[in-house]
Amino acid sequence: MERILCAEALKRAGVAVEVAGWVHRVRNLGGIVFIILRDRSGIIQLVSGAEFNLNLESVIRARGKVINNPKAPGGREIALQEYEVLSEAEPNLPFAVNMDPDLLGLETILDNRMISIRNPKLLSIFRLQAGCIKAFGDFFRGEGFTEIKTSKIIGGGSEGGTNLFSMDYFGKTAYLAQSPQLYKQAMVASGLERVFEIGHAYRAEKHETPRHINEYVSLDIEIGFIDSEGPLMEIERGFMAYLFETIKRENQSELDAWNVILPNPDACSKIPIITHEEARRIVKAETGTRIMDINPEAERILCDWADRERDIPMVFINEFPRRKRPFYTYPIGQKTMSFDLLFRGLEITTGGRRINDYSMLKESLAKFGMLESSLGSYAEIFRYGCPPHGGFAIGLERITQKILNLASIKEATLFPRDRRRISP
Amino acid sequence: MERILCAEALKRAGVAVEVAGWVHRVRNLGGIVFIILRDRSGIIQLVSGAEFNLNLESVIRARGKVINNPKAPGGREIALQEYEVLSEAEPNLPFAVNMDPDLLGLETILDNRMISIRNPKLLSIFRLQAGCIKAFGDFFRGEGFTEIKTSKIIGGGSEGGTNLFSMDYFGKTAYLAQSPQLYKQAMVASGLERVFEIGHAYRAEKHETPRHINEYVSLDIEIGFIDSEGPLMEIERGFMAYLFETIKRENQSELDAWNVILPNPDACSKIPIITHEEARRIVKAETGTRIMDINPEAERILCDWADRERDIPMVFINEFPRRKRPFYTYPIGQKTMSFDLLFRGLEITTGGRRINDYSMLKESLAKFGMLESSLGSYAEIFRYGCPPHGGFAIGLERITQKILNLASIKEATLFPRDRRRISP
Repeated sequence: MERILCAEALKRAGVAVEVAGWVHRVRNLGGIVFIILRDRSGIIQLVSGAEFNLNLESVIRARGKVINNPKAPGGREIALQEYEVLSEAEPNLPFAVNMDPDLLGLETILDNRMISIRNPKLLSIFRLQAGCIKAFGDFFRGEGFTEIKTSKIIGGGSEGGTNLFSMDYFGKTAYLAQSPQLYKQAMVASGLERVFEIGHAYRAEKHETPRHINEYVSLDIEIGFIDSEGPLMEIERGFMAYLFETIKRENQSELDAWNVILPNPDACSKIPIITHEEARRIVKAETGTRIMDINPEAERILCDWADRERDIPMVFINEFPRRKRPFYTYPIGQKTMSFDLLFRGLEITTGGRRINDYSMLKESLAKFGMLESSLGSYAEIFRYGCPPHGGFAIGLERITQKILNLASIKEATLFPRDRRRISP
Repeated sequence: MERILCAEALKRAGVAVEVAGWVHRVRNLGGIVFIILRDRSGIIQLVSGAEFNLNLESVIRARGKVINNPKAPGGREIALQEYEVLSEAEPNLPFAVNMDPDLLGLETILDNRMISIRNPKLLSIFRLQAGCIKAFGDFFRGEGFTEIKTSKIIGGGSEGGTNLFSMDYFGKTAYLAQSPQLYKQAMVASGLERVFEIGHAYRAEKHETPRHINEYVSLDIEIGFIDSEGPLMEIERGFMAYLFETIKRENQSELDAWNVILPNPDACSKIPIITHEEARRIVKAETGTRIMDINPEAERILCDWADRERDIPMVFINEFPRRKRPFYTYPIGQKTMSFDLLFRGLEITTGGRRINDYSMLKESLAKFGMLESSLGSYAEIFRYGCPPHGGFAIGLERITQKILNLASIKEATLFPRDRRRISP
């Protein structure tokens, strides 16, 4: 007999089936035992008159006939005929896999990641995250973008050189890339014009916040032949609508597990665009307090404002001051053609037009106190014909966190890296 | 007027259009100038009676009417009315972008990567590579696999701990992961059962060969509830057929640029499976020479043999001796449930069943002279119920190299890292 999934077995009343999975829960009612078996498709109840002494999380293969039982999960159960132990679990689990994970602290969840990840609610975070990755690739391929894979080991910093992890590279010092910035610009100039990358990015920042991790997955795009940040925000509106539609269609059970409601995809076309100055004015009007920079509290206030005004908890902020953006950002006076996208109080995207003119780039470097030589072969991108271009990056873990309203970004990371954590 | 792509303009005879791109070639015939303009869709000829003094690779926006000209590439050209320079190129290109790249050496191509990548033939490698990435994701998602993203910064080695790049992690020593081995096994045991990852892997090996790079993209899968390497080879046969079909359909122009013919997708179901011992016997029979290990020369001989016998230049080798495989490989006596897949003389996949029983794993560690403590929280995967499982990894650059018959793997890597190369 061939193994079928629990979800499939639930459809086959009256049929003898074989299932396999983890022992999720056992209820012994004296003479009758109910076992909940868990596999990748869900759960099914096994019922048996014989003894059943396996520890929770043991992996078994079980055979029996599917029978109707309105009280069983899914309305059916398997009358257990025989089973085989594939892997017996030790009895000393650090906590019950089948418990409500809201009762576990974040440190417990992460310290015992190999166990906590088995909890269906915690695991569902990563099913949804997989949906986000797929949606990103599908959407941008559909818009004529080509996927690229660029090196994460670099000779120098692409964003100014601070906060880089250093490594030993055959006796030389190299660094882990904090973004594929240089490379995606090179690939626009290569003639691909429209590129995207899904890859890790590294920041050696000593943050201890619910929004920072030191290694994250960056969903990057870069696009040629645009002369302001406008088309970038427009295409991101389109992507957000596509993402929400796709998740609504394909990840409803994950949304249900977390009891969250997605923003209305149709409202994405109305995501407001406000300048950095307007953002400061709105925060002043909402709170009475004057702010210089858009801090986390301001990000929350602005998303609430957008939700009230446009029925979507997202807002673009553009025209950031030059001093707040990296040297390669396209300036307009003391402002820049740049933007952030905030979602439920968190910056999930940074982007903008880049300088494509080499002499303008050299001026900008000088303004930022950087040497032209620090560009290295980066310079060649601009010296030999580079169209006007720009791009943005979305943090995969941040967007996952905000879709599911998770308290910390680390919950949205399978094996998060922070200042103290390099395992598991 | 809105810019359209060259490929689109070629379809619009009699219509005034705007195109934009790079000046690929200029022929000045005295009184009449032919300019080949290149964009992401291809090329189009512009024809003008006026002077045209721009350097090659300059980026322009051009307007004019599309007219028929049987001698022009694609049978049509644009009668140039006006153009605008978006970015002027310097005149001192290290070599002509429009030249035949076969005349350039590998070092020249890589030392000048920002320029060489503009060559349409060299760029086509990465259009095809993007197709491979997409095919991998689509195929395995279709087979019920979930995409995961795991950390590349680890506290210790997952494959025995040699050949690791070390890095400074906030004052501690950490390493770059040489594979997601530990993590993908954890995610099988998490209940996802079937996972795949597309991510970088790092090997601090001092190789100087056409088949090794120190950073590569690993296409990894891992699958639960299998008890031999058989189902892994079967699913990889299915993937190879799907990959070749997809590339044939979507990347024909890249195949044409390199003048290569793909293996017949239908023949993938006949890829032979031979044991390590049989492989040695075949090499002996073909060459008269006795070998102990399957070296690169033997890999070529075996693929030629398979091509002759089964009409496909691919062969699976299984039952590798235990001493040739990592400690986590499932043993059968002195052999293992493991395999390689060779394609056109190159190992493109290594895989096998893993040990899922904790006591068997501890025995294996001892045999390999390793300490149980070196497992760290890896042990938890097996202590609390882990189904029999296995998986494999395909090297993205290697499969790209072999599809296009490239001499070196570095040609199939956008920004390759070798012992001496950490830029661009």
